[in-house]
Amino acid sequence: MNAPVSSRDALLDDVVRDVLPLHPAIARDAAAALDAKTKPRGSLGRLEELAVQIACVRGTVRPAPLEPAVVVAAGDHGVAREGVSAYPQEVTGQMLATFASGGAAVAVLSRSVGARLVVVDAGVAAPPVVPGLRDLSLGRGTANAADGPAMERVVAAEGIVRGARLGREVARDGAGVVALGEMGIGNTTIAAALTCALLGADPSVACGRGTGLDDAGVVRKQDVVRRILAVNAPRADDPLGALAAVGGFELAVLAGVALGAAAERALVLLDGFISSVAGLVALRLAPPLRGYLVASHRSPEPGHALVLEALGLVPLLDLELRLGEGSGAALALPLLGAARAILVEMATFADAGVTDTGR
Amino acid sequence: MNAPVSSRDALLDDVVRDVLPLHPAIARDAAAALDAKTKPRGSLGRLEELAVQIACVRGTVRPAPLEPAVVVAAGDHGVAREGVSAYPQEVTGQMLATFASGGAAVAVLSRSVGARLVVVDAGVAAPPVVPGLRDLSLGRGTANAADGPAMERVVAAEGIVRGARLGREVARDGAGVVALGEMGIGNTTIAAALTCALLGADPSVACGRGTGLDDAGVVRKQDVVRRILAVNAPRADDPLGALAAVGGFELAVLAGVALGAAAERALVLLDGFISSVAGLVALRLAPPLRGYLVASHRSPEPGHALVLEALGLVPLLDLELRLGEGSGAALALPLLGAARAILVEMATFADAGVTDTGR
Repeated sequence: MNAPVSSRDALLDDVVRDVLPLHPAIARDAAAALDAKTKPRGSLGRLEELAVQIACVRGTVRPAPLEPAVVVAAGDHGVAREGVSAYPQEVTGQMLATFASGGAAVAVLSRSVGARLVVVDAGVAAPPVVPGLRDLSLGRGTANAADGPAMERVVAAEGIVRGARLGREVARDGAGVVALGEMGIGNTTIAAALTCALLGADPSVACGRGTGLDDAGVVRKQDVVRRILAVNAPRADDPLGALAAVGGFELAVLAGVALGAAAERALVLLDGFISSVAGLVALRLAPPLRGYLVASHRSPEPGHALVLEALGLVPLLDLELRLGEGSGAALALPLLGAARAILVEMATFADAGVTDTGR
Repeated sequence: MNAPVSSRDALLDDVVRDVLPLHPAIARDAAAALDAKTKPRGSLGRLEELAVQIACVRGTVRPAPLEPAVVVAAGDHGVAREGVSAYPQEVTGQMLATFASGGAAVAVLSRSVGARLVVVDAGVAAPPVVPGLRDLSLGRGTANAADGPAMERVVAAEGIVRGARLGREVARDGAGVVALGEMGIGNTTIAAALTCALLGADPSVACGRGTGLDDAGVVRKQDVVRRILAVNAPRADDPLGALAAVGGFELAVLAGVALGAAAERALVLLDGFISSVAGLVALRLAPPLRGYLVASHRSPEPGHALVLEALGLVPLLDLELRLGEGSGAALALPLLGAARAILVEMATFADAGVTDTGR
């Protein structure tokens, strides 16, 4: 089970090493700055925690506007042929086209909140021919993980490296926060299997309805996850191996985007279950990533709660969203913008001539 | 306890009568429109409910952008001399100035989310001299409700009428949603007393820490609320009388703003405990208001949960905000904008050529 030494692994090592721990000094300065603002101490609750985190990641108590970006990556999954989704596989490529043409939920929501949308083909079976698509494809869909590895280890590493390059590029282009979104018919099954592999969870607690399974479908999905685990025996202490064994291409790319964005001191905003699993893979590779991660929303998908707990994150929103695509992350972006504004734009008690009782 | 017949009461009757029930037909059309969009049915959760409500209130399944406004009203309370706040009364007027000059949280957050901010003196003890203040003052602070009525019934009616005129004006100027915010040292005590009066709650469950009371302060506050109730004997079936007896000026004006905004078919977005109590007073006067109300966030103030339950509203956010001012309402405004965008801008399965399995 030892990894082959390859140039890919060396590149991956660089990606991992570039995620640096945050300095607690800025957290103290940001907290002090917030305490001087014209409001009772701590009265903006989680917005204040978010403001402190933004200051730490951006390396300043006066961060510039965050200019958010949403990176939505799509990939297909061989496991889709096991009947684990309410939708046929062709929908992945169709939706990828709709992301790029602007009619999909994540496109509408990104516009609504003023975020740049970056649409990535991480490896769909039938790539659409549309302008505005970023081609990082690792193949025309993964192999069926219920029969054997979804991809080779070197391909998973390549996906992370490609994603990291994109994450760095998007952050260098101005994004102070990069939100992760995904699309891939069958990918809640893959995310559930990775959750079981990395967290030791049982398939019965990690599998949910995805985007529309009935009770029989959920049972079938649990069985497929059990087969994935039995066939591949993924190890919790080998996140890259687990990712390669289970899939998928979009998870590899998104794990890389998270690492690359963090390497450029951008925050990484997770969406729902699947992007959070990508975040968990990235965190297991690079533990300092933790300080850069923000959870946008709590999905009703049961595995999401397990992953959030493992990440140590409490989501900002709980709106019963189960679409994916980055829709929940897009909806949470204005809260990050507001937290930054509080830190930078609010008057202090002294500025405003307001009596401060120190409460 | 019968109300005196006055021209104020006649004007108030008009305000109440102008809030019209919503038509369920548009709700059905909006739900059908959402079901045709390129996403699994219902997968945008509460955002879809919000989109349906926006369609109903605006009277169309293709509502224009909401152009939100935040109305923040400040008033002083005679009860402040009972030592029920961590802050001295002078802070009310000082903060009103900070709202108008743009350095307060609600000003920063309104700018951050692209909302117009309307700053109202509903009756502060020491009105600041600053540009941009809307003078609807009902007096230089209410009388101490722990000693007798906070204001005369006719003054409460006048406050509602003035607020309704402002709510109509703001909505006519383009706001499709009007968010309510407040400021007033001592007003969580007043809101707690009104909660007890209107809902029959005990002061021990309706009183919390406000913006920073210690344990002894909370006990003192409960005693003051008991005195307010004993001295005034406000009746649950007479919301105007209860408002007059307990106060305050900013609650009267905000109840009016809610009614006026709804009369112009704008949504009314509540902030925390105090604005929700203003919403409850307005709802008791005009039951059709219910369809126009949206709860932005859940405050840790214990009385808020009681009021939300009475209103039948589940808040969009739960971020441990306890500042007031309209800060939580401002933070929720992008969710309303996003819900509208989903309804109007998303492609349908047919538009996008995406396979629809009807799930």
